[in-house]
Amino acid sequence: MVTVTSVDYEIVVNPLQALEELFSDKIHQVNQLLYKSAYSKVSTLPLISSHIIGSGGKRIRPLLTLAAAQLCGYTNGDRDVHMAACIEFLHTATLLHDDVVDESLLRRGEPTAHTIWGNQMSVLTGDFLFVKLFGLLVQDGCLDVLKLFVKTTQTIIEGEVLQINARTSSTLKREDYFAIIEAKTAVLFGAALELGGMVAKATPYQMVALQNYANNIGVAFQLIDDTLDYTSEQPVLGKPIGNDFFEGQITLPLLILLEKLNSKSQLLSEVQSILQNVEKDVTDFKRIQGLIYEYDVVSSIYREAESLSEKARKALDVFPSSFLKEVLLQLTYFVVNRCN
Amino acid sequence: MVTVTSVDYEIVVNPLQALEELFSDKIHQVNQLLYKSAYSKVSTLPLISSHIIGSGGKRIRPLLTLAAAQLCGYTNGDRDVHMAACIEFLHTATLLHDDVVDESLLRRGEPTAHTIWGNQMSVLTGDFLFVKLFGLLVQDGCLDVLKLFVKTTQTIIEGEVLQINARTSSTLKREDYFAIIEAKTAVLFGAALELGGMVAKATPYQMVALQNYANNIGVAFQLIDDTLDYTSEQPVLGKPIGNDFFEGQITLPLLILLEKLNSKSQLLSEVQSILQNVEKDVTDFKRIQGLIYEYDVVSSIYREAESLSEKARKALDVFPSSFLKEVLLQLTYFVVNRCN
Repeated sequence: MVTVTSVDYEIVVNPLQALEELFSDKIHQVNQLLYKSAYSKVSTLPLISSHIIGSGGKRIRPLLTLAAAQLCGYTNGDRDVHMAACIEFLHTATLLHDDVVDESLLRRGEPTAHTIWGNQMSVLTGDFLFVKLFGLLVQDGCLDVLKLFVKTTQTIIEGEVLQINARTSSTLKREDYFAIIEAKTAVLFGAALELGGMVAKATPYQMVALQNYANNIGVAFQLIDDTLDYTSEQPVLGKPIGNDFFEGQITLPLLILLEKLNSKSQLLSEVQSILQNVEKDVTDFKRIQGLIYEYDVVSSIYREAESLSEKARKALDVFPSSFLKEVLLQLTYFVVNRCN
Repeated sequence: MVTVTSVDYEIVVNPLQALEELFSDKIHQVNQLLYKSAYSKVSTLPLISSHIIGSGGKRIRPLLTLAAAQLCGYTNGDRDVHMAACIEFLHTATLLHDDVVDESLLRRGEPTAHTIWGNQMSVLTGDFLFVKLFGLLVQDGCLDVLKLFVKTTQTIIEGEVLQINARTSSTLKREDYFAIIEAKTAVLFGAALELGGMVAKATPYQMVALQNYANNIGVAFQLIDDTLDYTSEQPVLGKPIGNDFFEGQITLPLLILLEKLNSKSQLLSEVQSILQNVEKDVTDFKRIQGLIYEYDVVSSIYREAESLSEKARKALDVFPSSFLKEVLLQLTYFVVNRCN
């Protein structure tokens, strides 16, 4: 781990790596539990499940569960591991169905499950992982945790539907966009941290703090995701860029570009006509990319993400100083400044 | 209700209709609960949910839950209604995903959800109904019931995967076929009756009886379903016939035909060559239909279904005589002799 020394704690250069090191034993147990729980005598199901479980995700959500539990004083037992596996299972199940829904060809640089095994098997394996998740939750036996998962999953599905509906909407507003990314991303981050808090029997103050932290880094995370889709390169991002653009998905870069062009009727018409064209090509994408840079859209978004990131740091004030808290503070910078 | 008088009870001519009449108030409450539970502020989700909930299903599974509860002495309360709605929700969620998986165009004579709203929305609405089901189960709060749903759902998914794998298998055996239909159909019938028993706190003897009844009528039901796909007509069945044949799905009619042709090498080669051809046409279907009738395949299957139906009747011996028991006995005949 590359670190530089500050007054109180070492400043972590890569906080995700720091979390991985802090919780390396527990994350290993999470991974074991994920593979073990995806067992079925019908071997196609664990085969496809393993493909998606092992496809190189950052495990950011289970790491957040483990971190929240420790931050709130959980020390003995492995219920944090159980909950961390559950949150990753939910994420994994939704990824499988998302890839079918979005017809994505690549995820994390690898072919998606449905391009290898077909839509049918991806839908069924997503269902299977979802059932296995509820199996783990029933095994845990806490109805409040089950309730949280029901609510979270429903919100994620609603977010997906809102997002699909937004593709055919020519009048998407900023608040609609934020409602979608909160439902799609922030809610799962929120659940990850809330679970850690529940396991540790956190105080109501601590729970609110975890929620605020999660919501702010969750939204910031997605703002950057949506921006990287215009500014990154496929080898860095692990999937083709311009996905949202070619799918007709309006995200913050386009919303801000349209706002900035509001007084420039000719350019505005040109952009709107590109966006309304169902047969978009690479020249169209390059033109939009150019305008996004020309009109400082990217820096506007980074300012917005940094402001959310600051709110997330503020939320952690209720917790006393610790190395783990420092890592979580650094994570708020990392979420904004990552390149994939 | 058309009935004729026997010594002890009226003999019911249409036992499904008799069940509907016996439980008309409760089924009305089940329907209300289904529509109410499919609520979401994202209106696309209840819209598609209502389409599938209201698409004219026979409600045979919730009726079986209500019947099992009453048969085992449940009289006060509405937990039977809650459980009946849950079993129908599971059935409905799996139907939505099945239609995507099987690319079906019609269900019960109406266009399937994915032909109207697309695969994306059908996958997401299936997920939504599935989550709503778990929401209802968490509301009920019984971990044993939750466990039953997890196990049942997993088995149904495994059955679907086995069925898809069987499409590319040229050596499907009878036991594989029965394993598939048990997992796909009988298990859900089993859960429907078991839930009724659980609500009524049935004795272990009664539970075993309900399981045997369910398993035997479940398998018989599916044998007839698979046969009607060769022998019915679209207006009667509510969906095109020959579905399994054109999808390359080997079911009992073909398995028995292949067995009967085992000593007739020329005919056997002809049939195998038709089945291996991926581009099957109506002439091929007619040829197979002809052979199925010529070699008495249909009557062989009906004999098999009748034998299962008899076992189901035998299972009910543990229950004392009652009008409801008589209806359930008659249902075993109906399952075999129905035309859609």
